[in-house]
Amino acid sequence: MTATMPAGVETARDLVGPAIAAAVRRLSPDVREVAEYHLGLAGGSPGAGKALRPALTLLSARAAGAQPERAVPAAVAVELVHNFSLLHDDIMDGDTERRHRPTAWTVFGIGPAILAGDAMLALAQDLLLEGTSSSGVWASRCLLAAVHRLIAGQGADLAFERRDDVTVTECLDMAADKTAALMACSCSLGAIYVGAPAGLAMGLGEFGAYIGLAFQLTDDLLGIWGAPEVTGKPVRSDLRARKKSLPVVAALTSDTDAGRELGSLLAAPGELTEDELLRAARLVEEAGGRKWAEAEADDALGSAIRCLDETELADDVRSEFSAIAEFITARQW
Amino acid sequence: MTATMPAGVETARDLVGPAIAAAVRRLSPDVREVAEYHLGLAGGSPGAGKALRPALTLLSARAAGAQPERAVPAAVAVELVHNFSLLHDDIMDGDTERRHRPTAWTVFGIGPAILAGDAMLALAQDLLLEGTSSSGVWASRCLLAAVHRLIAGQGADLAFERRDDVTVTECLDMAADKTAALMACSCSLGAIYVGAPAGLAMGLGEFGAYIGLAFQLTDDLLGIWGAPEVTGKPVRSDLRARKKSLPVVAALTSDTDAGRELGSLLAAPGELTEDELLRAARLVEEAGGRKWAEAEADDALGSAIRCLDETELADDVRSEFSAIAEFITARQW
Repeated sequence: MTATMPAGVETARDLVGPAIAAAVRRLSPDVREVAEYHLGLAGGSPGAGKALRPALTLLSARAAGAQPERAVPAAVAVELVHNFSLLHDDIMDGDTERRHRPTAWTVFGIGPAILAGDAMLALAQDLLLEGTSSSGVWASRCLLAAVHRLIAGQGADLAFERRDDVTVTECLDMAADKTAALMACSCSLGAIYVGAPAGLAMGLGEFGAYIGLAFQLTDDLLGIWGAPEVTGKPVRSDLRARKKSLPVVAALTSDTDAGRELGSLLAAPGELTEDELLRAARLVEEAGGRKWAEAEADDALGSAIRCLDETELADDVRSEFSAIAEFITARQW
Repeated sequence: MTATMPAGVETARDLVGPAIAAAVRRLSPDVREVAEYHLGLAGGSPGAGKALRPALTLLSARAAGAQPERAVPAAVAVELVHNFSLLHDDIMDGDTERRHRPTAWTVFGIGPAILAGDAMLALAQDLLLEGTSSSGVWASRCLLAAVHRLIAGQGADLAFERRDDVTVTECLDMAADKTAALMACSCSLGAIYVGAPAGLAMGLGEFGAYIGLAFQLTDDLLGIWGAPEVTGKPVRSDLRARKKSLPVVAALTSDTDAGRELGSLLAAPGELTEDELLRAARLVEEAGGRKWAEAEADDALGSAIRCLDETELADDVRSEFSAIAEFITARQW
């Protein structure tokens, strides 16, 4: 199944894309080169990332009754933080491919990639603080809070790699930090930036946390069963890297024969062969990990939609939020 | 010659030390462990760094007629940014020893060390923005500006490693970004944070930029002729790493036989032997690199003191600023 990009995402890309490019042009030449490559603004890329988070940020400004243009600095800040984390995570995880291209650290080296990430994090703060919004400081603090959770989540993810007793609860907590926190921030930062009432910002943040969780579950499923042309990464890359992703942990802790067999397979030293990777994917499924993750994603998406229903929103804004929610959790496997 | 630590630095350490420890305790457990180790708050350290920058920040608040206590968040923020950059630079430069201990990335791995640096950068912003100072936002923006220059300077430093035609001017520009910008910020951020007039903040910033340059020149000289017990690093470590430090670049571009011989020596493949390192140090000296750097450091220190003279300051504050300036450029070789 192929998901269709909601119209709001395309519009957001047109509005935010040039603003991101302009922001990055402020960086010093060495750092800028790496940032532009990573963002797909240079280096023969088919284009930048999907810009889902900026689309959500602009939509949250509209939810507060403002023109989306007013929230562009917030949307750019969110996208810069997202890309700061991707740049650094790719180094930590040793990932060599992203968005169908070699990762920045493999092209420019670890040092320049660390620096480019650092610069994007600082730049995100600049944008929120230098704008004319009187809520810029509060927006900056909310984004910093998301950054801390992102870091905590990635820290937990790294720690999980060295453990073989990770529970599903720990794994869900990690996803809440690593993915859902920034998504929650994306869904509320535009509203915060244009001075929305706290109740609206909180309702949108809650919606964002649920779609963030649904998104992580979907991403984990794609990491096992997604086609490379969809994920931009090699097939079964998460299994190859022995990632403690949600479906894998659900399988490992399922108290089934398939789960135990998966445990021994992943514990074996040396690189996994293609046959072993196929077998691992089958074992995750047999142990119920796939079904569980799909059901959890459905639940989270359902909760997200209920949050929308309980939040006072114009009809067009509500339907755009739900279209994006459904798009990012669409099953492309 | 051994320099005596000015009393103000000790006092600052007593005031700022506990505040740094408290700030770092907010980080998530995995990240906090690395940050505490790096900061010398754990892991059998003889103590934290010299806390020169926080001392300068507190002093700048006093220059504005405020109690130093009021500028503690700014002093902590400066020290966190300094340590964020050390953590990341150690990874990029492959440095294995700092402050007489193994560097954080060698103990915890590259991933956790990147994350701890990221978290300290974000935490510095938190502190400035959440305080009660109405100038916190401006302080935060000034610190971000220093962060960008720091990143630009480290980027240039990395780029220099791959070039053999670096000029003295480029090298001085790099030092202005990598070292002097944060020192200038340290010398003015306390004043900014407590709401000092712009003229005072600018005068102090200029003083800081000069002592930053003098400090870098001194550090580069220590990197060749400093004793390991003073530097906390192996002897002649900068030459071993073939760093394009200021005295080395001055020697390489000196148009002397010694400079050319140094160039061939450093261009030769493979690790340099102890004999070659000794010879390289001698060649830097023969080519005039050492004398030039010492004279530049003296000049910069002189300009710094003139800045102090031209800035309206209480006598005790002025003499403490000059004591710190002289301490950090004292010749311990």
